[in-house]
Amino acid sequence: MTIASLRRTSPNMALNQLVDGRGAAGESLVHLAFGEARLPVLPGLAQQLAAGASRASYGPVAGSEGVRRAVAGYFARRRMPTTADQVVVAPGSKPLLMAVQLVVDGDVLLPRPAWNTYAPQAAYAGKKAFGVPIPDEWGGVPEPGALRTVLRAARAAGRDPRLMILTLPDNPTGTLAPPHLVREVCAIAEEEDLLIVSDEIYRDIVHDPQATPFLSPAEVVPDRTVVTSGLSKTLGLGGWRIGVARFPANETGERIRDAVVSVASEVWSTLAGPMQQVAEYAFDEPEEITERLAAGARLHGAVARAVHAIAVEAGARCRPPTGAFYVYPDFEPHRARLAERGVTDSASLAERLLDDSGIVVLGGHLLGDDPKALRFKAATSLLYGNEQQQHEALACDDPAGLAHISSQLVRIGQGLAGLIGQERQQ
Amino acid sequence: MTIASLRRTSPNMALNQLVDGRGAAGESLVHLAFGEARLPVLPGLAQQLAAGASRASYGPVAGSEGVRRAVAGYFARRRMPTTADQVVVAPGSKPLLMAVQLVVDGDVLLPRPAWNTYAPQAAYAGKKAFGVPIPDEWGGVPEPGALRTVLRAARAAGRDPRLMILTLPDNPTGTLAPPHLVREVCAIAEEEDLLIVSDEIYRDIVHDPQATPFLSPAEVVPDRTVVTSGLSKTLGLGGWRIGVARFPANETGERIRDAVVSVASEVWSTLAGPMQQVAEYAFDEPEEITERLAAGARLHGAVARAVHAIAVEAGARCRPPTGAFYVYPDFEPHRARLAERGVTDSASLAERLLDDSGIVVLGGHLLGDDPKALRFKAATSLLYGNEQQQHEALACDDPAGLAHISSQLVRIGQGLAGLIGQERQQ
Repeated sequence: MTIASLRRTSPNMALNQLVDGRGAAGESLVHLAFGEARLPVLPGLAQQLAAGASRASYGPVAGSEGVRRAVAGYFARRRMPTTADQVVVAPGSKPLLMAVQLVVDGDVLLPRPAWNTYAPQAAYAGKKAFGVPIPDEWGGVPEPGALRTVLRAARAAGRDPRLMILTLPDNPTGTLAPPHLVREVCAIAEEEDLLIVSDEIYRDIVHDPQATPFLSPAEVVPDRTVVTSGLSKTLGLGGWRIGVARFPANETGERIRDAVVSVASEVWSTLAGPMQQVAEYAFDEPEEITERLAAGARLHGAVARAVHAIAVEAGARCRPPTGAFYVYPDFEPHRARLAERGVTDSASLAERLLDDSGIVVLGGHLLGDDPKALRFKAATSLLYGNEQQQHEALACDDPAGLAHISSQLVRIGQGLAGLIGQERQQ
Repeated sequence: MTIASLRRTSPNMALNQLVDGRGAAGESLVHLAFGEARLPVLPGLAQQLAAGASRASYGPVAGSEGVRRAVAGYFARRRMPTTADQVVVAPGSKPLLMAVQLVVDGDVLLPRPAWNTYAPQAAYAGKKAFGVPIPDEWGGVPEPGALRTVLRAARAAGRDPRLMILTLPDNPTGTLAPPHLVREVCAIAEEEDLLIVSDEIYRDIVHDPQATPFLSPAEVVPDRTVVTSGLSKTLGLGGWRIGVARFPANETGERIRDAVVSVASEVWSTLAGPMQQVAEYAFDEPEEITERLAAGARLHGAVARAVHAIAVEAGARCRPPTGAFYVYPDFEPHRARLAERGVTDSASLAERLLDDSGIVVLGGHLLGDDPKALRFKAATSLLYGNEQQQHEALACDDPAGLAHISSQLVRIGQGLAGLIGQERQQ
């Protein structure tokens, strides 16, 4: 029998397993290649999980009325009026993103670079993915001129992009696109009849909400925007698998939602009952939750900025991080110097960092970026240490100054400086 | 934008929601259209769920070493030697079945009738599903002669069936195919180079294991059999979403497993950590679990046999149930009489039962069966009542004689008799 020649395991998850394995073997690595928010589980969440044990029936595919109402309230408090009917919950936002790609016809437009799961999902759904370069200042949204160019070229080649995925704030660049750019891209979506999927799983990790206001495409073009989110990033619950989607209130939205629910009913049935109970509590946002969201955003911002400063000091170009917990440095300014040392693209760059310094990053080529570019993603949320240290970091005004974090920052600085053959002073 | 015209919500899940809605509105229905094992959650499982709260990291895509070892032990105790490497856990067996259909090339052969999820999954995976009639005595496996005929016809029409799904014991017929039939179908798979997916989620619900021995295709053609299972049916944990797959130990098996893990990493990441802890405990099979499996199988058998007797008394043909918790009556003997009353196919048969008697069943047409046939599936596991009543039923030697069950059996008897205009005496 023949097995379809499909991609390998999601590169970030594969790297995570590699690091776990090497770590178990005693090797000391600085793991920056996995977008996991390492934060302690809040007591209230653990209580809800235990209390939800009796929810062992399948229940409605889209989720119980209670959890969908709580999620609707969450969106409504963020300037997106929502009814429970517009909401579907699932075991993570990945299956919801996959289902939307399965049920909406046509091809898909992605920012370039983008989170490494959108493109493989497009392939599973039989779509072609078109990467559109991002602006110099922000990621997660295409540069408007480039968007028009790519759309035109795709159509000229007989393809039919109908879906565009945006990431706000962005993984991998750790930046939040500003309102004027969101509006501009939404206007193109309107003109060109594109459905937007706005992946807002990092929505509550904006480092300084006053300085960088958040505008969702669902506020601009509500009739053509599906929003996805979840608890994996903001509450450090990646391993609990809780995701949500919000569909437009119009007829198109209902049709997409119904089709997504059909996929859900055949592929994952529903979100586990105890997890629905957790989600209902969390999306209602009691004080425990809002405090954690604020503390988490503060911590993520502080450490991401510290890593950004290190990258810039090492001579990289790098967008200043304003959301999520990533930086995306570009070593183009050192291309000649790196080439002398055999580093000519993002794969060899990531490999050199691992081999020379034990620093694990995700090369930009794994994110759809130009493989020749000298860019990589570093997830700074992996630096918070063990559970006790995570508590300290959340409570601290200067988490980057904590010994267990600063020691890793020093090692990152040495590793980046070493890339171009510099010794870095302590 | 256009939305692909895909199927509606899984018909059994849609009916379940309809019944919940009508029930909330005060209507009294006998719901037999949803394959949920209504059993109380075991205390040890609830404890494991609570204890698993700290498992909030993503962890390995296939599941932790511990849970995969426990599942391997489960299979090994059932004459299928297994290493942890051969196991993948997931949020239900549905995503695993979907992933296998996505990664194995070619079309798919299904028993006719079959569980209503295999065919829509095939459609999502871009496969054509070929239904092969089942023997008169058992379901879940194709009749061997018919299998050869359908294969030949499919190939003559330019199609390429490479995958065959078997269900042991079977949903919807509630029967277990005997070893000689399994061997015969495995031999055809070997000759014709088909990969077998053996859905064994009802494996531990064989009513009388002495009378009807279980033989897995993985014992006969281990190199070409993927086995799927889960805890939804045997432990009444449908709402917790815990499924497993066992892949062949050879190179083909490794390639399918790797491809399935790739799909998992992009679509659902992994089974939620707390659920992995539950699964590790349950698949290790401590006494609490083995006792429940035995008590459950006894209960399911007793009530399924009672409903079978009622269907036969009402004049239906019906395979005697030997596994799972279903009966699949055929009212063909009463076709003329039913036609006089406007019932001419399985859709009108199910509709008449609902309208006249408030009995909810799944018409055979929703299971891939000939729409003209007068057949339906009844899930007898929905008759066990509330949690207190479920405990009574599990402990009772004659559960069908318990007041809360027998009263519903009487109503089913009246409803089936009423189909052909008979009054049924009490």
